[in-house]
Amino acid sequence: MNKNLVRYVLGWVLIVVGAMLMLPIIVAFIYGERDYIYFGLLAAVCLALGLISSRFKPKNTQMYVKEGYISCALTWILMSVIGCLPFYLSGQIPSFTNALFESVSGFTTTGATILGVDRQIEELSHSMLFWRSFSNWAGGMGILVFMLAVISQLSGQSNMYLMKAESPGPVVSKLIPKLRGTAGVLYAIYGAMTLIEFVMLAVGGMPIFDAITLSLSTAGTGGFSIKNAGLMAYEGHYYWQAVVTAFMFLFAVNFSVYYLLITRKFKQAVTSEEIRWYFIMYAVAVAVIGIDLTVNKVYPSALDRWHHSAFQVATFASSTGFASKDFDLWPSLSKATLMLVALVGACAGSTGGGFKVSRIIVLVKGVVRDLRHMLHPNSVFTVKMDGKTVKEETVRSINVYLAIFTFLFAMSVFVLSLDEKMDFTTNFTAVIATINNMGPGLSQVGPTQSFFHYSMLSKYVLIFDMLAGRLELLPMLFLFNRDCWSSKR
Amino acid sequence: MNKNLVRYVLGWVLIVVGAMLMLPIIVAFIYGERDYIYFGLLAAVCLALGLISSRFKPKNTQMYVKEGYISCALTWILMSVIGCLPFYLSGQIPSFTNALFESVSGFTTTGATILGVDRQIEELSHSMLFWRSFSNWAGGMGILVFMLAVISQLSGQSNMYLMKAESPGPVVSKLIPKLRGTAGVLYAIYGAMTLIEFVMLAVGGMPIFDAITLSLSTAGTGGFSIKNAGLMAYEGHYYWQAVVTAFMFLFAVNFSVYYLLITRKFKQAVTSEEIRWYFIMYAVAVAVIGIDLTVNKVYPSALDRWHHSAFQVATFASSTGFASKDFDLWPSLSKATLMLVALVGACAGSTGGGFKVSRIIVLVKGVVRDLRHMLHPNSVFTVKMDGKTVKEETVRSINVYLAIFTFLFAMSVFVLSLDEKMDFTTNFTAVIATINNMGPGLSQVGPTQSFFHYSMLSKYVLIFDMLAGRLELLPMLFLFNRDCWSSKR
Repeated sequence: MNKNLVRYVLGWVLIVVGAMLMLPIIVAFIYGERDYIYFGLLAAVCLALGLISSRFKPKNTQMYVKEGYISCALTWILMSVIGCLPFYLSGQIPSFTNALFESVSGFTTTGATILGVDRQIEELSHSMLFWRSFSNWAGGMGILVFMLAVISQLSGQSNMYLMKAESPGPVVSKLIPKLRGTAGVLYAIYGAMTLIEFVMLAVGGMPIFDAITLSLSTAGTGGFSIKNAGLMAYEGHYYWQAVVTAFMFLFAVNFSVYYLLITRKFKQAVTSEEIRWYFIMYAVAVAVIGIDLTVNKVYPSALDRWHHSAFQVATFASSTGFASKDFDLWPSLSKATLMLVALVGACAGSTGGGFKVSRIIVLVKGVVRDLRHMLHPNSVFTVKMDGKTVKEETVRSINVYLAIFTFLFAMSVFVLSLDEKMDFTTNFTAVIATINNMGPGLSQVGPTQSFFHYSMLSKYVLIFDMLAGRLELLPMLFLFNRDCWSSKR
Repeated sequence: MNKNLVRYVLGWVLIVVGAMLMLPIIVAFIYGERDYIYFGLLAAVCLALGLISSRFKPKNTQMYVKEGYISCALTWILMSVIGCLPFYLSGQIPSFTNALFESVSGFTTTGATILGVDRQIEELSHSMLFWRSFSNWAGGMGILVFMLAVISQLSGQSNMYLMKAESPGPVVSKLIPKLRGTAGVLYAIYGAMTLIEFVMLAVGGMPIFDAITLSLSTAGTGGFSIKNAGLMAYEGHYYWQAVVTAFMFLFAVNFSVYYLLITRKFKQAVTSEEIRWYFIMYAVAVAVIGIDLTVNKVYPSALDRWHHSAFQVATFASSTGFASKDFDLWPSLSKATLMLVALVGACAGSTGGGFKVSRIIVLVKGVVRDLRHMLHPNSVFTVKMDGKTVKEETVRSINVYLAIFTFLFAMSVFVLSLDEKMDFTTNFTAVIATINNMGPGLSQVGPTQSFFHYSMLSKYVLIFDMLAGRLELLPMLFLFNRDCWSSKR
């Protein structure tokens, strides 16, 4: 591995993070809060270190797989640690582990929180609340993608590995031949959609600060909100919740669809198999839950049943993790549906998490292909998607993904079970909620509960799961690979 | 598919099942029970139909993949339905679904029971109890394997597909060049070991009927016992429980090891990677649980802690499913360890269930190989086991197995969640317990509970899972494949 190149990339990351830290300073000034000290101090340190590091450009700037994965993993760890310091230094989250959990949960767009027990979310200052929601937004599209969009020194074609490591949506890297252009287009769509959501919420009468923070965390499919009660705090505001429902759904769609729409390739945009199955999954899940709530007479009004079913499925499918109702009180079929939807997750190339719809499609088609091959050993069958043959390498890599996912899942539940005070449902859904970057689980980590009660060990396991989930497993794995760190090619 | 051949195979199956039904008749006579009527009647019908069907030998007796899988799946369904009739006709299990559940649970060596609620196990007659435990024994090594061992008409090399479909242990079919010989050797080892266990229990003072039935269900790693309290009924009988522990452990070892020992190939027997990892898993799990019980001061005596840890890990690793203590009351780390061990399961080519140790080894090695390939795209890496290269086809098939396993698992838990009265832990562990042919789960299907309370739909889902688990997924899947049923080649 070219350590000097990784150091150089991290230098640029520090500059970007330093710039990001300027935003909450503005918020602090507007609300007359003293927290600008912490953000300012951190920004200064980041910028200083970043500028020094980026001064020394390595001789060899050719990026390979190893450098891509390691840079990506280290970037996210660095960013999370810096991101937690304002909470910790200001004393608004007094425990470092808790502050780090909150920061990782923010950047990975998980939205699981340790607040609500010893500290309420409402006790945080405006600037901290903004920073918390902004971390959802920054993490949604990815900081390396952002860096590639704005920094010309790094946007050679060889940096594809960097972008791939951060969000390996199968189509993302091929929108425009030039990588920098692709990153720019993605952020432009992302920013524009966030703005539209903000306007729609503000026009609907939502307080401006609420609308800003909510738009940021919806866009990243993050799920942080500025109230302890989450979206339940807007009980009865059907319009606001409906806007959020629509945008959660939209941010979980593969962004290449929007690019195709902008470039007027309507037919190509509509015929994607992944989008079709994403729609079907959404519709079926809403129907199942709507009927289940009706059969079990959960709410008196039909509007409430279907409204909250549509909201909650959107939040689980997109891995946002908002709660408009305490779904932990819903019948078990509804809860199982939500958990299944969370495991499948969003479309590839979106800001959403989960296993990803396209991966499931290829996995199923691969299995069917292999079963057919067993019956007809002399025939050759290929896996096709959107009319094109999927490379054997891709099919294989998704099977490997499933295997790693399963191992990580089982081991995480196992280690969490050391926590005697948590029940099995809690541990199981806590892992679903973190590894899929979703947010709340069921039982003791349900929507009205908190991750606060987990032990320190459990919290670090969940922190690892959130990072592994956001980076789609590989970068965090390669971090433990000696071969990756060696300077040999 | 050659339907005539499948009909012919099923004819032979009927003869074998008819012969099996003679055994409980003897038991009925010994204990002066009137139940010989049901067994006698059924035996007569089976033998008559079987003899007629086997008279008409099809012109083409060449067995292909399709015939192998379909014959196997239908054999197990036929056998289970016939097997449930004595319980149902005698009225000792008044519901057909419950009787079928019990029968499938027996033949698939699961050992999950619907008894203990409206009917106690002790209410069954001796002949029914014997039939129940005998189904564990017959299902353990497989009825088709038995058929191939005794019936010369069917033991051509082409019937390998039949044997493979029933128990695809990787080595099983290669012990002896001739298939009939292999099946015979397997049953000889199986019978001898069962006999040794019986003698050891009887010598230790266990009542003869208890010793016979317990040996039969241990050998099949089935888990049925003749008492409501299961092995907890022998509380304090450390010797008896220790003998059962040892034999559960031994029956979960790949039978080719015993063949190698008999033929004095000691070195080859000892160096198997699968056996080594099976030992390590067992030792580590016993240690973890022993320490966990000690730390949490679960039993006053250290002997009890380690004795029951060793017993319970053996029962979960071998997928037998006996309970020497109510492990549902153990600390959550112990419970999680047991469930993890159950998911991994026994060695391939044994009577035990689960994912199988060798599959996990190949899966892990395959993943590591692929990750290395990602870092060094130009190098070629192979997966090796016991020093030999594993075929790419095998690696791939295990990944497919994992994918199908995961889908079936998720869908089963989902459908079970329709049962509002069961909690998530119950549903989740009920699926682990049935798909891995283990037996009891946790919570409402814990070792002192019963599967009785599940709805009819849930019971049929679990019946499917037991059959799919015992036949290692594929035969039950191909049952739904139209291509398989078509007469085209």
